[in-house]
Amino acid sequence: MTVSPRGSARTEAIMRTALELGRETGYAKLSMEAVAARAGAGKHTLYRRWPSKGALLLDSLLHLHAPDLDYPDTGDVVADLRTQIHAAVDLLGNPPFGPLYRALIGEAQHDPRLAADLNKRFVTPQTEKTVARLRTARERGELSPAFDLDLAMAVLSGPLYFRLLITQEPLTHAYVDRLLRALFDGMGA
Amino acid sequence: MTVSPRGSARTEAIMRTALELGRETGYAKLSMEAVAARAGAGKHTLYRRWPSKGALLLDSLLHLHAPDLDYPDTGDVVADLRTQIHAAVDLLGNPPFGPLYRALIGEAQHDPRLAADLNKRFVTPQTEKTVARLRTARERGELSPAFDLDLAMAVLSGPLYFRLLITQEPLTHAYVDRLLRALFDGMGA
Repeated sequence: MTVSPRGSARTEAIMRTALELGRETGYAKLSMEAVAARAGAGKHTLYRRWPSKGALLLDSLLHLHAPDLDYPDTGDVVADLRTQIHAAVDLLGNPPFGPLYRALIGEAQHDPRLAADLNKRFVTPQTEKTVARLRTARERGELSPAFDLDLAMAVLSGPLYFRLLITQEPLTHAYVDRLLRALFDGMGA
Repeated sequence: MTVSPRGSARTEAIMRTALELGRETGYAKLSMEAVAARAGAGKHTLYRRWPSKGALLLDSLLHLHAPDLDYPDTGDVVADLRTQIHAAVDLLGNPPFGPLYRALIGEAQHDPRLAADLNKRFVTPQTEKTVARLRTARERGELSPAFDLDLAMAVLSGPLYFRLLITQEPLTHAYVDRLLRALFDGMGA
């Protein structure tokens, strides 16, 4: 058993409860009150730390399922993108991260503060990793010198979000492989 | 003044009121009750036709702002994509369509029926137009024979949805132009 300050162990228990209840009831029916009751904490304790259930769930997902989405560098950029994006869809396409992440993005359309947190804590760090890996590839001549690195994240993850949020079809490794082929082998004449 | 059956003029008045109130209050604060009251209709009249405010708004947007997003065919596929996607971002990036469409996608993350309607009535027809235009280009040798037409919509519109829903940066013509350059000139070595 790890020794942790009492406050932090309690915070972690609340976050575990939030994810557990979120999985059971779905995002829409989840309430701060229900999380507080099951965690044996006061409602005000929760609101002191998290302004909304969206903020609580985002914090819980990132803290308890800290995504390990680093890019390998084997010297083959397409293979390395494939490895990393397979890991990303395993995370985004499955519980607990997937359905709650989708619900958080839905909520972010009405909650600018949650939208900003989601970008700051998850999307921006992932974007920076993606740009760094592609910059190396561009320097090595694996990508055209014309490739616009600032658009890398939109180009590579946009089609995943399209499936996750719009068509709501499953995110599979096969879909990732087809996408990478379409992008790298199929766009030009 | 056009002659229209009484039911349909009334339906249209309710839809106009829904969009007007939606713009004024934002999606989250909009209620079926408020729309009914301002339109001088009974709440039950609204619920008989639309199961939720999401369904009412989707119907209103598509009926009153029927998107005209056809592709031209000038013989230059990238130029034609540019023309059509400029029109799409003018629609999706501005009121009344833009903010309400974004809110509807948010709501669709919690409402499977709305998600299905959104696909059936807007996304799928647009996808069919996109595939048809790109099939012609592939047949003419403007796209690689390897290009996977079934992914065309995800590849081309995914990066727009990424900006609309995730980073929430503005959708501009300049962004579209950079995207098309990155996709068509920049992915390969």
